[in-house]
Amino acid sequence: MISFFKDKHPERLARQLGQVVHQLDDLVHLTLNRTVRLAVTGLNQSGKTVFTTTLIHHLLHALQGSNLPGMNVVAENRLLGTRIMLQPDREIPTFPYERHVRALLANKPVWPVPTDAISAIRLAIRFKPAGLMSRKLAPSSTLYLDIIDYPGEWLLDLPMLKLTFEEWSEQTLRLCEEEPRRTLAAHWRAHMAGVDPSAPAEEAIMRPAAERYTDFLMSCKQSKIGLSFLQPGRFTIPGDLKGAPLLTFCPLARPGAEGVPPGSLRDEMANRYASYQKLVAEGFLKRHFSRFDRQIVLLDLLGALNRGPSAFADMHTSLGAILENFHHGPSSLLSRLFAPRIDRLLFAATKADYVAANQHHNMERLLRRLVARSANDASFQGVQVQSQALASLRCTRTVVREHQGRRLSFVQGTPKGREKETLLFPGEIPENVPEADEWDMHRFHFMEFEPRRPPDAESPTPPHIRLDQALEFLVGDKLT
Amino acid sequence: MISFFKDKHPERLARQLGQVVHQLDDLVHLTLNRTVRLAVTGLNQSGKTVFTTTLIHHLLHALQGSNLPGMNVVAENRLLGTRIMLQPDREIPTFPYERHVRALLANKPVWPVPTDAISAIRLAIRFKPAGLMSRKLAPSSTLYLDIIDYPGEWLLDLPMLKLTFEEWSEQTLRLCEEEPRRTLAAHWRAHMAGVDPSAPAEEAIMRPAAERYTDFLMSCKQSKIGLSFLQPGRFTIPGDLKGAPLLTFCPLARPGAEGVPPGSLRDEMANRYASYQKLVAEGFLKRHFSRFDRQIVLLDLLGALNRGPSAFADMHTSLGAILENFHHGPSSLLSRLFAPRIDRLLFAATKADYVAANQHHNMERLLRRLVARSANDASFQGVQVQSQALASLRCTRTVVREHQGRRLSFVQGTPKGREKETLLFPGEIPENVPEADEWDMHRFHFMEFEPRRPPDAESPTPPHIRLDQALEFLVGDKLT
Repeated sequence: MISFFKDKHPERLARQLGQVVHQLDDLVHLTLNRTVRLAVTGLNQSGKTVFTTTLIHHLLHALQGSNLPGMNVVAENRLLGTRIMLQPDREIPTFPYERHVRALLANKPVWPVPTDAISAIRLAIRFKPAGLMSRKLAPSSTLYLDIIDYPGEWLLDLPMLKLTFEEWSEQTLRLCEEEPRRTLAAHWRAHMAGVDPSAPAEEAIMRPAAERYTDFLMSCKQSKIGLSFLQPGRFTIPGDLKGAPLLTFCPLARPGAEGVPPGSLRDEMANRYASYQKLVAEGFLKRHFSRFDRQIVLLDLLGALNRGPSAFADMHTSLGAILENFHHGPSSLLSRLFAPRIDRLLFAATKADYVAANQHHNMERLLRRLVARSANDASFQGVQVQSQALASLRCTRTVVREHQGRRLSFVQGTPKGREKETLLFPGEIPENVPEADEWDMHRFHFMEFEPRRPPDAESPTPPHIRLDQALEFLVGDKLT
Repeated sequence: MISFFKDKHPERLARQLGQVVHQLDDLVHLTLNRTVRLAVTGLNQSGKTVFTTTLIHHLLHALQGSNLPGMNVVAENRLLGTRIMLQPDREIPTFPYERHVRALLANKPVWPVPTDAISAIRLAIRFKPAGLMSRKLAPSSTLYLDIIDYPGEWLLDLPMLKLTFEEWSEQTLRLCEEEPRRTLAAHWRAHMAGVDPSAPAEEAIMRPAAERYTDFLMSCKQSKIGLSFLQPGRFTIPGDLKGAPLLTFCPLARPGAEGVPPGSLRDEMANRYASYQKLVAEGFLKRHFSRFDRQIVLLDLLGALNRGPSAFADMHTSLGAILENFHHGPSSLLSRLFAPRIDRLLFAATKADYVAANQHHNMERLLRRLVARSANDASFQGVQVQSQALASLRCTRTVVREHQGRRLSFVQGTPKGREKETLLFPGEIPENVPEADEWDMHRFHFMEFEPRRPPDAESPTPPHIRLDQALEFLVGDKLT
């Protein structure tokens, strides 16, 4: 020991000791603390950015007039505080919480502008352990919560890993037989009628074909149509891959007698599909998905009802495709590649505040039916699946009024694009998936609202609906 | 053999035979054909996109009224034709040749809009070998020319691999002592005066610091200032990394007695610098730079002269930093990591048509001095370095006129932003780097021109200056 201290400059010594303490601290973290990687994603315009922003905000301010009674760690008074920490993955963009919360909590609040890319943020949640034994061992513990926010399009790429180019083409073309895809795809399909897939592959033929297919996907995605089962996901959000050959293909009709001549357009498009599978879909699986612990998928159920039967059916298809990723039978491709470790999966219908409180029960029932129809929960090995309705930021309040002798529930809030608060009758949510003959043009027209605080909001943190329940399901067990 | 054909469906058989032929063809390519990976990059606004576009255009049209007499394969009538092929790296965006050439050769041509990202394109150049022996072996041969166009900013990241965070900080801060950096960096440096690097690292402190440093880099890059030695390169062109922690640091003054406390802002910024080195700079080196065979670096020498001594000196610094990548002594970090295989390196001063023909000699001399001053050519092991002037698309012609009894060389063309052709006296280029007292505010004011064809242009392909010489140096030896 003496030889260690000998001939050391005091400053160097202090620095070395500091490093030792730091390393010990790390070791303690590893043993007593836990890390949970919570993935947040959503199908088109489901309010993913608002969800992540308010979730962080509530955790950071949970001690100043708590608004999260549904979290056991809060109800039992065990929460000691939450801080934003440095993010361990330095190449993933940081979730811009500060910027988004400024937009949401401004004097005249606006919905934050979301980005179409992955982002991450790390929180450290300090709490008192629940058990007497654990509390003796350590009076406080820390949960490192890594929140990873990524586009739903990436998640919907995973099912492509199970399909050959031919199978995927067939599935996509079959979807294009139904409206609204049929009409939206007409331009691309007319173009393809003049393309010979058995001719030699040329960029000058493949690029316009892929561009028209991409235009078709973009038109399906626009908010009026609002489809979400759109593959390949990177065609509409290419990022740095914009213009790369692996984004330059499109589905092709099954080959006839000519087969797949080597070097043909069909051959090359199949190769590009394979590159997309490997570098994009499998890349996401390897780098991100297989490292997630918990997953929440947000849905705009009200928007899908507004848009009518085809948008609603499409959301159903997307849910089914997402659930497939969690069927790890022994024969599952995903589990053979990289078994995901996600053990809790939450489907959440957002914007619950756009309807009256008495509709929330139906909203959850409808969502549960959508999820249950697609997949039998019992078939998930070790994955707990739950569904619920929530509002990340409640912008309305429910007002019950007599109307022609009946008691009706209204919502009061500032409708999107307007300045003044209004009292509206938003309509009712069916508790079952509507049958074909139950839809009619004007059945659903749920309004959207501006992020103004409703008049009954008293707490210093912004009001929400069941955000705490979502959090309890997603991370509550890690805070005991 | 019979057993092979037995019980085969004729179509499947045909497809299998086709595949065999295709594979044989590939094998022949491997043995008789060659691939060259030509990298094109440039320092700010040097006309990289125009260079790559016209290079492709001339090769594609070399048989229709050749405009490339300086290429031996053309002069000796051995060129058989060039085609665009499918690009082997499917994840790299394809160079949008068609789009750019449409802009350049439109009825009212415009300069194409460049992108700040990597792109690639593959050409197949078919030619008759020069030697009698080779011609007997194969009457024709094919050179696969992969052209990879990437931002100069990426190349200027490589020198960072040799520097620690402290060394890099010191070098950058030293540069900031000189104008125009001194003034441009004032805002960022004033901000840093209030930041304690030994305090615990917090995103809320690091982000504004990095943002102000990025603003400084952006202001150095704007065309009026036109500096190019700006590190780290991805700060100004982040792409998908926008907002990532590895782009969220900045140079810090050397630590005092407080040292580098673990977990401090200084410690974390050094870690982020290390991540940048590894994931960005080394990533480029591994994935791209170490696979290039030939490199051309384009420079806007005239622009640098226009902007004055500091912009000129900065270009000199950049050239020196680029050349350092090619010093592979046994102790070189780069060669220990991944020895680049580049064996020819061309520095080209573009826009030679903005001055009169009698100035081209001085232009080349000046460039050679800049390059030679930075590095002794003899120290490059196995890398041939050359410098030349060129114009990818000649937009002017030289007109000699008597003026006050002297013969002066004018250029005739359509100045940038104007509609009509004008005769201008562009001024002269010094053959030496001007000394400090030789610069004055109004010494150089070379005009830029619109891409209109000059009146003397007769060839069907657009006129250029010494583009063929550049090509001969870069790939001529592979076409023999």
